[in-house]
Amino acid sequence: MNAMSPRLPIERIIKPRSVAIIGASEDEAKFGGRIMHNVVRHGYAGELLPINPNRETVLGRRAYPNIGAAPGPIDLAVVAVPAAQLLQTIEACGAAGVGACVVITAQLGEFDSAGAALQDKVVATAAGYGMRLIGPNCMGMITATHALGLTSSPTLQYADQLRRGPVGFVSQSGALMGALFVHGHDHGVGFTSMISVGNQADLELADFFEALIEDDETNTICLYVEAIKKGRHFVELAQRARARGKRVIAIKAGRTEAGSAMARSHTASMAGSFAAFEAVCRETGILLVDEPEAMIMAAGVLSRSPRMGQGGIGMVVSSGGGGAVTADRITAAGLPLARWTDATRTRLGTHFLRTHQNNPIDLGAHTGALGPHIFKDAIEAVAEDENVAAFLYIMTPQPLMPQTVEAIIGVWRTARKPIIFVLDTSRFGEDVRWRLLDAGMPFVTRIDDAMRVLDLLVRERDQAPATTGAPQRPAGARPLPAAVPAGFLTEPEAKNLFRAYGIATTREQSVRTARDAVVAAETIGFPVVAKGVSRHVVHKSDLGLVRLALADADAVTRAFDDIASALAAAGDAGEPNVVVQEMVRGEAELILGAHYDETFGAQVLVGFGGVMVEVLRDIQVASAPLGPEQAHAMLRRLSLWPVLAGTRGRPPLDVDAGADALTRLSWLAHDLGSRLRDLEINPLIVRAAGRGAVAVDGRGTIGDDR
Amino acid sequence: MNAMSPRLPIERIIKPRSVAIIGASEDEAKFGGRIMHNVVRHGYAGELLPINPNRETVLGRRAYPNIGAAPGPIDLAVVAVPAAQLLQTIEACGAAGVGACVVITAQLGEFDSAGAALQDKVVATAAGYGMRLIGPNCMGMITATHALGLTSSPTLQYADQLRRGPVGFVSQSGALMGALFVHGHDHGVGFTSMISVGNQADLELADFFEALIEDDETNTICLYVEAIKKGRHFVELAQRARARGKRVIAIKAGRTEAGSAMARSHTASMAGSFAAFEAVCRETGILLVDEPEAMIMAAGVLSRSPRMGQGGIGMVVSSGGGGAVTADRITAAGLPLARWTDATRTRLGTHFLRTHQNNPIDLGAHTGALGPHIFKDAIEAVAEDENVAAFLYIMTPQPLMPQTVEAIIGVWRTARKPIIFVLDTSRFGEDVRWRLLDAGMPFVTRIDDAMRVLDLLVRERDQAPATTGAPQRPAGARPLPAAVPAGFLTEPEAKNLFRAYGIATTREQSVRTARDAVVAAETIGFPVVAKGVSRHVVHKSDLGLVRLALADADAVTRAFDDIASALAAAGDAGEPNVVVQEMVRGEAELILGAHYDETFGAQVLVGFGGVMVEVLRDIQVASAPLGPEQAHAMLRRLSLWPVLAGTRGRPPLDVDAGADALTRLSWLAHDLGSRLRDLEINPLIVRAAGRGAVAVDGRGTIGDDR
Repeated sequence: MNAMSPRLPIERIIKPRSVAIIGASEDEAKFGGRIMHNVVRHGYAGELLPINPNRETVLGRRAYPNIGAAPGPIDLAVVAVPAAQLLQTIEACGAAGVGACVVITAQLGEFDSAGAALQDKVVATAAGYGMRLIGPNCMGMITATHALGLTSSPTLQYADQLRRGPVGFVSQSGALMGALFVHGHDHGVGFTSMISVGNQADLELADFFEALIEDDETNTICLYVEAIKKGRHFVELAQRARARGKRVIAIKAGRTEAGSAMARSHTASMAGSFAAFEAVCRETGILLVDEPEAMIMAAGVLSRSPRMGQGGIGMVVSSGGGGAVTADRITAAGLPLARWTDATRTRLGTHFLRTHQNNPIDLGAHTGALGPHIFKDAIEAVAEDENVAAFLYIMTPQPLMPQTVEAIIGVWRTARKPIIFVLDTSRFGEDVRWRLLDAGMPFVTRIDDAMRVLDLLVRERDQAPATTGAPQRPAGARPLPAAVPAGFLTEPEAKNLFRAYGIATTREQSVRTARDAVVAAETIGFPVVAKGVSRHVVHKSDLGLVRLALADADAVTRAFDDIASALAAAGDAGEPNVVVQEMVRGEAELILGAHYDETFGAQVLVGFGGVMVEVLRDIQVASAPLGPEQAHAMLRRLSLWPVLAGTRGRPPLDVDAGADALTRLSWLAHDLGSRLRDLEINPLIVRAAGRGAVAVDGRGTIGDDR
Repeated sequence: MNAMSPRLPIERIIKPRSVAIIGASEDEAKFGGRIMHNVVRHGYAGELLPINPNRETVLGRRAYPNIGAAPGPIDLAVVAVPAAQLLQTIEACGAAGVGACVVITAQLGEFDSAGAALQDKVVATAAGYGMRLIGPNCMGMITATHALGLTSSPTLQYADQLRRGPVGFVSQSGALMGALFVHGHDHGVGFTSMISVGNQADLELADFFEALIEDDETNTICLYVEAIKKGRHFVELAQRARARGKRVIAIKAGRTEAGSAMARSHTASMAGSFAAFEAVCRETGILLVDEPEAMIMAAGVLSRSPRMGQGGIGMVVSSGGGGAVTADRITAAGLPLARWTDATRTRLGTHFLRTHQNNPIDLGAHTGALGPHIFKDAIEAVAEDENVAAFLYIMTPQPLMPQTVEAIIGVWRTARKPIIFVLDTSRFGEDVRWRLLDAGMPFVTRIDDAMRVLDLLVRERDQAPATTGAPQRPAGARPLPAAVPAGFLTEPEAKNLFRAYGIATTREQSVRTARDAVVAAETIGFPVVAKGVSRHVVHKSDLGLVRLALADADAVTRAFDDIASALAAAGDAGEPNVVVQEMVRGEAELILGAHYDETFGAQVLVGFGGVMVEVLRDIQVASAPLGPEQAHAMLRRLSLWPVLAGTRGRPPLDVDAGADALTRLSWLAHDLGSRLRDLEINPLIVRAAGRGAVAVDGRGTIGDDR
């Protein structure tokens, strides 16, 4: 059966006009019962079609004996049948003209090879009818804007409402959708749609990501990612989201082998390189976090907050001790605390001694008799301070809680800056929580969450401007000679490629005899370096193939002979292949690399070379190709950046030359495309500012076209 | 009035037999009303004496017109009068023979100079009667074991009980005590006593720390610290707590200037050096954390958990996605995940395919029909695995929650290892929460807290064994010559001190003429280094006073002349003072330092020198004196430790020699005691293993006895 073009656009799948529930029941112990109850309970206004051969009605809705008997057109059918019945059910749905099936059924591709084979058949069958699939192995979806709780998650029985709001969520984990729905519900986070995509056998995360970008009611999109199927498409979507002013917050499994293994068995996803995903997030403005609940808490705040401007964080607290510790954490995390303006000091002066006008303001330290106006004045003074770009209030159990929360709701409604409210009272603050839910004001309940929100706001503010179009090819970076052979590149071969892209390399000469080596050394000028060249050897130094600082002809001759013996020992027959190079000195050694990521394409990396790269793992990764500003930014993000910038007693180095070499390598990597396996310049010796940077050694591996 | 010896021991202050409430009232808007209500509500069984001149009874208890009229002996009186009436109230309490006053009254030492003066008078008055003081500016205390909620915190009105348990808490912040009481209450954390010490005008944190160490019902002690008054005493207490097998978890304000400023105005505390406190915690086994709520959550778990043994973390989760992300976090944090034993694989094999036997186990991935025995079997298999040293369950909304929690309570009761339960369900899991509270089983509600608990368990397990007695003085580290003069030590003077303690320094000679410089260089052997010596100059290199790698007599002569000019320019009259030294080469440069901390005494530090110390701030601090094992441990904790240990292509260095120099410097610092201002060896050049380490430059400042 050939594939037909899909009948239903994605936005209509998220917001269906009619939904059939296969196996609808009134028994909440059954999937079809829980889904039915969830849909009915939350008041879905579209057409609801229970499919059940044994009943006239289900929960008061007319039931149909099979999908073919139900009146069409049917936008969505939910399928939670056992795997053995899945194929015939999909076939029936397709024949009935259903637009898309939400397949809850599990034990398919994520389970075993039989399940994977069945999944393939299911996909083919659906495609033959132009019917789309969500899942299998998914938990359905929740479209709050349509009061549609189309999921078997028991959490919808507990929730008094599907809270509407501007947050959308696409999840490769179904259980996580349920968990975050509850977490959001209790903390006042409102959603447009939450979609669990399961094994992504047909529709994938990116499809719903796109639909949420296009959805006018969604301003903040959360993603739980195990694997991206089409990297380039994902990047374009992220760029589009940014261009539309939508915030994207993501969490990705597979940062480590333990997480990758879990993702593999969870949704049959190959997690792909976390470093490449991280680079893509940085480049497209996606805010990457490390905890699912924290993502939803942050989305709850960000979706109702403007962006943070220039300035610092202004804090007001009800516990001096908690304030002190949080001020420590904020400062230690490199986040900026604001200094009060003189105007603020004057305003604070009404109720606070000069010695108590810290940031944070401890409300307990006021002068005079306690009254709500004191707290209100202090909150307004800090929130309105023009040095304060984000306002943070930490409410521990305190006097005047109702009046205080009204003051904060007031500034949240009027201040054009992020207002972060930490309701740090456990259940003692239940009245305040209800007031906040009622007012629609965002809040978090732990300092950890506030720290993450502040970090995201600052990251968002300080991210590089969106790039418009591809970066420009640097002058003299010649597009790749067509005939780069596949295989391992020796140092001279790799350097030929680097030079073709305008990267400075050592002056050097290949020789076959000791006599020629001496002539070469005299031409280049002493001291020189001699290296054995072999296609069999990756780590030359380990085999004695590198001799440094050869000061005269005798030294060169001896070195040549030693290297020739070492080459023979390494299995190179015939005349020894030796290269004589200038001895380059400089102030710092960088390592530059490139490789091809299956998902996102060519990547470049840079770090400090020698012992530093091994010990500190201080490496930055980015997508190729780079513009010069991006290359500079990669260098600035290195922990050892001050070594390049110059610190006390050390000169600034030639950062421009280092960034230029990195840019050019990125273009070489880009041009190699899927033929790229890896490239490395190690070291690139960087001299003092204005004196350049030189690729001293390098290697690479080129593959065939894939 | 002279001080009398205190009438009441601290343990009786925490557990008083009789309590008078000055200004007791029935009006909860007043301090005396809230305290009265809190004490009555929670059923304090001792004698309660309301003091109120206008009433016969307060809340049904007979009231007395003044403290003198109440029947004695009175253990404790709570004083929340306005500052203007404080002195006369204290006087009256003293005259009435009260054992101790809890002074809630604020605006004293923490407020302004008038307040500080009044505080001094209050302390003197109380001392004259042998009456102890808690506070002022405190929030009272809560002794759950005596059902005594002696605080004005409104949180006690909300709590249905003062939950008893093995956690004690001493806090320099009163509001924090209230906040953490509530937080603990809602999460099942039980307390012996919580004491807020306020300004510590008399009794201080250490007094109550000691009382909790001696209290048989307390096994875990939490401390919120702004400043330690007597460092040595605190260290002894921490050691005693450890010897008694009691866990201590602490949080300290003042890690940054922002936090220190806050502490200053909060309780008039000078926060002291955070690095010194951190070192003391490491050395005494105190577990330092960064967030107050996290401290209480961790205490809740640790107070009901054995220590973690060798092995890894075994995880079971109800959300595969949440599990993948948490596995990533655990691994990225350097925490160990367990590998299942074959026996466990066999047990898991009943319900899980081989490909789904990850760590974590995702319960949703089971084979066959769902049943509670599947979850129970998996939980037991993992908890009983002998490779699993700590068990982690993350419960998101899931099927079979009641049965699952019973299975976990079961393993918690029988497994002799930490069982960490994350109730990650927001309020959806309310029934489970009540079941856990009822069973007395600890739980946390966020992954962040579980991460901290795991980190603390591993830190605790891997900490150095408790030191018994002082370390031994290294051979040849001669006790200090009595007559070290006060002032700035030039390089030769500092090196004389270092040599006296057995630290290897450069061979060198002081000279006054170029001719003598050449003679010295010939004696030492070329190449040499020449340096100008001046008491006026700290950074010699910046003024051109250091000349390296002088290869012959001419070079030495020219260097001498240059240095002589530079010395004259720096203001040194008379004959130039120049030192000629051997030129030492080695593999790594360390910087060693020492200084005197006002609270904890002599401290040593070590880091990599040169650009690394400035850029990476990779520095370790410890209390002096050190034993050799402690010095080695400091080096191992450096990020750049692999450079010393030897990495690929680099030899192992003389770690023993580096540790020995650090040990000897620590003894010098220890012997100087309070005369120490600072000492520095920079660099200590470390050669390859077996070839030693040499102090190449150094300086110091010695003060007068304090």
